[in-house]
Amino acid sequence: MSNRKLVVGLAGYGVVGSGFARALEENRDLLYRRTGCDIVIKTVVAKESEANLAHPLPQGAEFLHDIDAISNDPEIDLAVELMGGMGVAAKFIRKCLENGKHVVTANKALLAEDGLDFFRLAGEKNLYLGYEASVCGGIPIVQTMREGLAGNRIMTLSGILNGTCNYILSAMTAKGQSFTDALKDAQRLGFAEADPTLDIEGLDAAHKLVLLIRLAWGVEYPFKDLPVQGISKVSAEDIGFAGELGYRIKLLGQARMTDGKLEAGVFPTLVHGESMLAKVDGSFNAVWVKGNAVGSVFLHGRGAGDLPTGSAVLADVMAVARGSLPNNTGFVAQQPLAATLLCPSQAISKHYFRLMVPDRPGVLRDVAGILAENGMSIAQAIQKGEEEIVPLVFMTHDAKTASVENALKTLHDKDLLRAEPVSYRVLAHQ
Amino acid sequence: MSNRKLVVGLAGYGVVGSGFARALEENRDLLYRRTGCDIVIKTVVAKESEANLAHPLPQGAEFLHDIDAISNDPEIDLAVELMGGMGVAAKFIRKCLENGKHVVTANKALLAEDGLDFFRLAGEKNLYLGYEASVCGGIPIVQTMREGLAGNRIMTLSGILNGTCNYILSAMTAKGQSFTDALKDAQRLGFAEADPTLDIEGLDAAHKLVLLIRLAWGVEYPFKDLPVQGISKVSAEDIGFAGELGYRIKLLGQARMTDGKLEAGVFPTLVHGESMLAKVDGSFNAVWVKGNAVGSVFLHGRGAGDLPTGSAVLADVMAVARGSLPNNTGFVAQQPLAATLLCPSQAISKHYFRLMVPDRPGVLRDVAGILAENGMSIAQAIQKGEEEIVPLVFMTHDAKTASVENALKTLHDKDLLRAEPVSYRVLAHQ
Repeated sequence: MSNRKLVVGLAGYGVVGSGFARALEENRDLLYRRTGCDIVIKTVVAKESEANLAHPLPQGAEFLHDIDAISNDPEIDLAVELMGGMGVAAKFIRKCLENGKHVVTANKALLAEDGLDFFRLAGEKNLYLGYEASVCGGIPIVQTMREGLAGNRIMTLSGILNGTCNYILSAMTAKGQSFTDALKDAQRLGFAEADPTLDIEGLDAAHKLVLLIRLAWGVEYPFKDLPVQGISKVSAEDIGFAGELGYRIKLLGQARMTDGKLEAGVFPTLVHGESMLAKVDGSFNAVWVKGNAVGSVFLHGRGAGDLPTGSAVLADVMAVARGSLPNNTGFVAQQPLAATLLCPSQAISKHYFRLMVPDRPGVLRDVAGILAENGMSIAQAIQKGEEEIVPLVFMTHDAKTASVENALKTLHDKDLLRAEPVSYRVLAHQ
Repeated sequence: MSNRKLVVGLAGYGVVGSGFARALEENRDLLYRRTGCDIVIKTVVAKESEANLAHPLPQGAEFLHDIDAISNDPEIDLAVELMGGMGVAAKFIRKCLENGKHVVTANKALLAEDGLDFFRLAGEKNLYLGYEASVCGGIPIVQTMREGLAGNRIMTLSGILNGTCNYILSAMTAKGQSFTDALKDAQRLGFAEADPTLDIEGLDAAHKLVLLIRLAWGVEYPFKDLPVQGISKVSAEDIGFAGELGYRIKLLGQARMTDGKLEAGVFPTLVHGESMLAKVDGSFNAVWVKGNAVGSVFLHGRGAGDLPTGSAVLADVMAVARGSLPNNTGFVAQQPLAATLLCPSQAISKHYFRLMVPDRPGVLRDVAGILAENGMSIAQAIQKGEEEIVPLVFMTHDAKTASVENALKTLHDKDLLRAEPVSYRVLAHQ
């Protein structure tokens, strides 16, 4: 075996940073057997207040507060950025790359919203820019898209990309809880942040989706243009009706390439109870990919947490330690092409509707008529209750989003709705 | 982009060989975008009778019958071996490596039973020896074990590694078919070979398990010592009882490292109905891995077929095209260590029993007594029927294989069994 050494500077010592350090230390002998390289954390930079000092610092590491202690240290080969956030992290990563250091990061927001310069810079300098930990924690989905399935034209990609949302939706499904109660439980148990906005409004999933789209097709779906809808309005009632129809409601990040046009978004979506995605419970993540050669591939694992995310960071760090050639984007080009986007109103899907309508003769005929006029045929329907206002639940065959929107507008204009209508996409089962 | 070229010689043009060629041609532009390299099949070698000429040869490729046309051609950079079999394939791979060619193969039997020399040779010559297609078809499990989860101490690994067996067991479960009927259907539909022995007797799964064990721990479980039991004796009756207990019967390849001792084998196994593995239907494959950092990771996809396996071959070919450093074994050492094996009789598991016993007073007491004397406590029991001979079904808590064998021997000696007893392991659910 050789006697090489990889000197690491670690920025951020919160949950993920300390998890990475712990996994590195606990598995040190294994890492050496696998890479032939001593991986040594020389410097840890974090604010005292943000450091998870419950876990002791790596042996021999200096604990500092100035991030330049990493980016300016010529001895450091690899910077691991696990601080999160945009401004400081961005400057840090840029400086490290400029100074010839490989970079490994879990910063999905930064890479999705503002990461292209880093890929360009890393490409120019032939440096490794690893971000396995940015998407779905411990699931090796970045490498799978970049290399394992690289010979495939990807057709669709559907993922449960946010563990907090899946935990909440799973609890609502299992216990019939309201969103608010399930969120409170999740916060109490550490599955949701005190400010859960990024998670529950779908933005975290959207960041990951942008990264997956780059990896799958080498194209850019601008984050700000991506249709995103969170789960805060999903009701126990809709979860119940979905169940009666044989479906589960999941927050999915989805992308599909059809005739060169890319359609993508993050939405609460009905998933058939027999599909693997429906069986993803609690805080787990999963990604279902369809390629033109491989068919379906499904990966499932822990999407967050100190050690699972640490495992993903380690995978990248070990690739650097082995001296792997950078394959940062999965394409020769270090910049994605602009995607040709399908206009979101032209996206086609089955749809679920719950409409609160007045319980009077002819209302079903009127509503069904308006759906039909908009080209929507009905696959399943549920009408229940004998109150003054009753829920009318439909599942349609394929229809365009524009038709859905038009039908809802007409229903509103004709005064057929007694509450905000609910409509969700339904994932094609096969 | 650079203008590099990778010249490929393809040995074998059956289902997988032609699938690989087809995937390569259909996705040619994508492969170029991903690798910056023209991947060209120069030579295809196969017997006329064995070639799948329904799919035309790759454009510009010569079709020859002498395998030395590849191994001796200095223009060929990479040999893709998709003939299968042992003798000819072994000589071919050795000669290609000796002549400085990278090798990609789907030959699990050869690598598992007699592959160590190839790894040594490839290591010495710094050549890529790819075998993603050898394990679970299109599922990128080789790369995942070698790199994606490389930072983990693997604790257990359980896989549905043979699609034929899973197809048959799924059909038996869904339709209550006998093994014989399900096998006939599978043969008629192309999910089982005319001679299905390698599949149904668990040998194919065992080959894959040996490869996965090397990747997970860098150790060798000698193929000839691996405990292997196929599915030909699994009965519809046992599938039914397992269902009543909340379980499915699956053919699992399993390995577990406990206190430095490796336990492994291929057995029909009861899998809890709520586990992801229980949900793997038809000819799909899946692998469930537990690592000390990542926790559980589960991968699911098509384990066989022309294009899915072709997708895996392509992944390796593209790695060569990108100029990736070989990481053939996933360890610096190019030879696995000898594993410290747990004596199979000391393996611990829950067990399922079906005993055909005489329907006379006291028989349950006698049987339960013998199990108890052997340290087995009973978690669930089913006693049914009022015939002369009735099935007695137990699920035990953890017990050693030695205890199980001893109890069965005592039951036999005391003349309590009216038919061959059935006992299967039960997979720990968490």
